[in-house]
Amino acid sequence: MLKSTNETVLHCYPGLVALVTAKWNDEKNIMAAGWHSYMSYAPPIYGVAVGKERHTHHLIAKSKQFAIQFVPAKLAHYIETAGGFSGRDVDKFERLNIAYQQGETIDCPILSESYAVYECQVKDILPYGDHDWIVGDITKFHHDEVAFDGMLPNLEKVQLPIYLGQSQYIIANHETKLTRIEK
Amino acid sequence: MLKSTNETVLHCYPGLVALVTAKWNDEKNIMAAGWHSYMSYAPPIYGVAVGKERHTHHLIAKSKQFAIQFVPAKLAHYIETAGGFSGRDVDKFERLNIAYQQGETIDCPILSESYAVYECQVKDILPYGDHDWIVGDITKFHHDEVAFDGMLPNLEKVQLPIYLGQSQYIIANHETKLTRIEK
Repeated sequence: MLKSTNETVLHCYPGLVALVTAKWNDEKNIMAAGWHSYMSYAPPIYGVAVGKERHTHHLIAKSKQFAIQFVPAKLAHYIETAGGFSGRDVDKFERLNIAYQQGETIDCPILSESYAVYECQVKDILPYGDHDWIVGDITKFHHDEVAFDGMLPNLEKVQLPIYLGQSQYIIANHETKLTRIEK
Repeated sequence: MLKSTNETVLHCYPGLVALVTAKWNDEKNIMAAGWHSYMSYAPPIYGVAVGKERHTHHLIAKSKQFAIQFVPAKLAHYIETAGGFSGRDVDKFERLNIAYQQGETIDCPILSESYAVYECQVKDILPYGDHDWIVGDITKFHHDEVAFDGMLPNLEKVQLPIYLGQSQYIIANHETKLTRIEK
């Protein structure tokens, strides 16, 4: 039964967590973002919420560039560990031994082991409450073709970490039962 | 292996689909939205992408109010059918026989069978590409207490429809294997 409450109900998962990378001068960083969304298909535009105090926010605000990436379940520990220490103090790529390469349209590292990557140029940084909503034009897509079957992820080939909250994940894989909902 | 492509990679699922309700004068409507996100925790702010041509967009733009709701798997057909015809032509609440009640802080129907509802006052309507990103201050929360165990959904009590794409869902329930990812 539906009951109204004055306490915040923070329900938006289960869903994918995005890894956000950014670089400014010689500093690069990576963070996990639970609040993110496509905003437009054509032209492709993506948005992500980043706290103003985050080192990644600083790098994006300076460089006006960032990348959004999704990693398979075997790399879900990147999501959990990326928040464990600040990029101000350590190079997380070295510490976590993360393979990366240079973006094609932006001067920003992209994670080589991702199955989907969106390179973005910042369009707007919009302050809303305790986060900024960062809007980016997607300037280049990358994907692992093996991980997709047309538009859908191919769960026979890639295991997806679906975040539930509190470090718990549902792993979508070849054993996951899929249900088709009819109109 | 990561390969760059010029085709749009529309990957943001698996995740929850939000049902959006709105009302203006005597017209009310409901639509499914795949692109939505929390934007701020305190104060609580939520965003959702709505096409300018949608009837729901018209109702929100006029009334400056809307509600975001999440429904259990047994009602996932609302998600699939809500897009099947336009609210300009039919009353979807009647047609789909959807139980609803009046919002507490907004003049807008909220779905009585949801397990989580956010009543929202429009803060901004931001045009980005082929959608508008509608930002709302959450003015009231509702939830089904049975469906939650603290902050997490209680999968013993509620089955969640996790949208994969193309009308396919992963049903998160008591049989879903949960994996804890360690740092």
